[in-house]
This record gives sequence, structure tokens and C-alpha cells, in this order.
Amino acid sequence: MIEKRIKIVENILNANDQLALKNNKRIEDANAYSINLMASPGAGKTSFILATINALLDENVQIGVIEGDTAPVTIDSDKISAAGMPAVQVNTGGQCHLDAVMIENALDQLPLGTLNLVIVENVGNLICPAAFKIGTHSNVLISSIPEGDDKPYKYPNIYRGLDVLIINKIDLLPYLDFDMDYFRKGVEMLNPGLKTFAVSCKTNAGIEDWLSWLRMKIPQK
Amino acid sequence: MIEKRIKIVENILNANDQLALKNNKRIEDANAYSINLMASPGAGKTSFILATINALLDENVQIGVIEGDTAPVTIDSDKISAAGMPAVQVNTGGQCHLDAVMIENALDQLPLGTLNLVIVENVGNLICPAAFKIGTHSNVLISSIPEGDDKPYKYPNIYRGLDVLIINKIDLLPYLDFDMDYFRKGVEMLNPGLKTFAVSCKTNAGIEDWLSWLRMKIPQK
Repeated sequence: MIEKRIKIVENILNANDQLALKNNKRIEDANAYSINLMASPGAGKTSFILATINALLDENVQIGVIEGDTAPVTIDSDKISAAGMPAVQVNTGGQCHLDAVMIENALDQLPLGTLNLVIVENVGNLICPAAFKIGTHSNVLISSIPEGDDKPYKYPNIYRGLDVLIINKIDLLPYLDFDMDYFRKGVEMLNPGLKTFAVSCKTNAGIEDWLSWLRMKIPQK
Repeated sequence: MIEKRIKIVENILNANDQLALKNNKRIEDANAYSINLMASPGAGKTSFILATINALLDENVQIGVIEGDTAPVTIDSDKISAAGMPAVQVNTGGQCHLDAVMIENALDQLPLGTLNLVIVENVGNLICPAAFKIGTHSNVLISSIPEGDDKPYKYPNIYRGLDVLIINKIDLLPYLDFDMDYFRKGVEMLNPGLKTFAVSCKTNAGIEDWLSWLRMKIPQK
């Protein structure tokens, strides 16, 4: 009986991973790059996407955004639409992460053929999103200064699977006790040599460095 | 087949709730009060517990703390021990919340008979902890100012089940765009008349108001 239940769980995971591969091929075929953007609640995911959109406005880059929320709210997707880019809101119905099925459905709602970049804003959470592939090219995490310098030590799994780390809200450093060396040591232990950008979406500090990396990834159409 | 799997899930939920009731009776029998403290990562759960411990040091209140983490780290429980109170660290093994079984095991490790108050620091997460009863008397959420004023709108479930809300890091209000009226309106919609304390664990502002409430709940021994 126990053995049977374990088998069912394995099948679910495999189905998700297979569908993630399919999502990835679909984005590849459309000649677009894609990012799975993860963070705690309030770390600045939407602000970071808006800073990226605004900085690339004059560069003929079309960015589609998939907004994951646990409730039927369009606060974030409204902001993306107002910035002039197509956005799809996915309500997970209380689930703590997006999965490959949700992304498959969201991709149907985006003008994929016209896009150079797809950014998926995952549900605000440092645990569940790390366990589910959705089919994007890279995993990007935003850690924000007010969350404290011990997060890599407490949530190691999400740091292990990252391609890029964004340290956000560096404008608040003067007002907080954040030991950057301790933080970076924790990250280095889990993910040696991880590409990291320290930014402030409020002052735009560091955003240009992030864009230099991003521009190299975005295919031209 | 589908019907059978649904039944299994129902049984698991019921077992948790039954065990939560058992945990609650055990704490009641020991003549202690108990709190399920929830928050996003880095909202200040441990700092808030430490502020509470330190403020009550001269009042003959014994506080036991159960620290939930998704990884085998003792950063938070070490801080509680250093403050002179008994602490138990629970590693959820990657799970995004504590459950009643974990609390049952943790209670075994605490000197329950000597305690007036048990504080459970749940895993840093605004989604999963809201769905699992653990057997405490009250649900307390810490929302921190840097997380932004839209959290009640985005994570409604956790606000609905609260007995007390702590708004932390109010010392950072001058440096952030946080609309307190918008935030409170969102909370009021979900949980009318919710007991709320605005505090700073850094400056100790508001902590005395919280203690006035807490002192009324803590049984004398």
C-alpha cells in the first residue's frame, strides 16, 4: 500500500518535469529567453520586472510576464499592463508555487511569437517554488536586504538551484544590520561562483549591470 | 480510483487536526498559553520572540520556544537559548510548514510543566502554515513594513485565520512607500476588528502594548 502511494507521487513529479521540457521547447521555438523569478513576499519581484521593462523600452525588446498569485488578484499584472507589456495572471488557488501545467496554460495567453523574453513571477515563497520545474531557461532569486543576512543558511535549497541572484533594496543598507560578507559566504557555500547583482529598484543602482547580463541572453527577432 | 485518493487526503487532514486538539489539551493541562507565530522569511519572528523574552525577564515568566526550519540549522534556536529560555529546533526536511506531529514531538523536548508560554516560530512562509493546525491557542502573524502594503490582498488566507497581527519594522517607515491606510483596509476586509500592534523590535516601540495583551493571556503558576 505504501509502495503504491510512493509510485503515484513519482508519476506526478515526472509528468510535471516532462511538461516543463515541453514548455521550454515551445519558448525556444519562439526564439525567446525565459526566467523563473522567485523571492519571498515583498522582496521586490514586480518592481524588478518593471525596472527591467522600463530600462529596455527603447531597445525594441518585447517582454511577456506571467504573474503567479495564490489569490485572484491582479495587482501585479495590472502594473505590467500599465507599463505596456502583455501580462497573464495565474491564480494557484492557494498552492504555494507555480507548476508546468499552469505555465503551459499561461503561455497560451501570451503573444509568444512576438516576445524576446518571458518572465515568470513565481509565488512569493522561498521553499515550494524551488521544487517544481516550470520550463524556463534560468532560475533567478531576489533576496532583499530587510529580510536579513541569514537567508542562504535557512533556505539552502532555493539557493542551490539558482543561475542568478539579485540582492535588492541596497538603498536600505544604511538603516539595517546586514552583514554582506556573511550573506555572500552562505551563498558561495551553496552555489560557488553564482552570478550576483546588487541593485535598488528604487534608485536604479546596479540595474545596468543586470541588463548587461540579460542583453546577452535575449535573442534578437 | 480518484474517489479513493480523495479519501486518503481527507484522512491525513483529519489526523492532523485531531493531533492538534491533543497538543492543545496537553498545553492547557500544563497551564500554559501558546502562540503559532507566522511570517514571511525575514519579517522578524525571532527578533520579536527575543524582544518578548527580554521584556518579561523580570516577571517570572518561563517561555519555551519551538523553532521551525526547513533545514538543519540552529541559528534561531541558538539565539533563544542564549536569551536563557528552552528552545527546540524542528527541521521540516524541506516542508513549507510545521504540522501537529512535529509539535507533538517538540513538546516532548520542552519542560512543559515549568512553562507559562509556548511560542512556536513557524516556517517563514505566508501560504502553507495557514493551512495546518498545530494546536496552539492563537495565530499571530508578523507583517513587516519592507514587505509592502499589498500583502493582505495577495495572501488573504493567512490574514483570515489570525487572532493578532503584528506590524513590525515601523522604524523603516520614513524610508519606504508604505500606505498604512491601504494595508489596514485590506486587513479589515479579511478580518474585521483584528487586534493589531505596530512595533519595532529594533527601537522597542510598541512592544509594551503587545505585552499588555500578552500578560492577560499568560496563566500564572
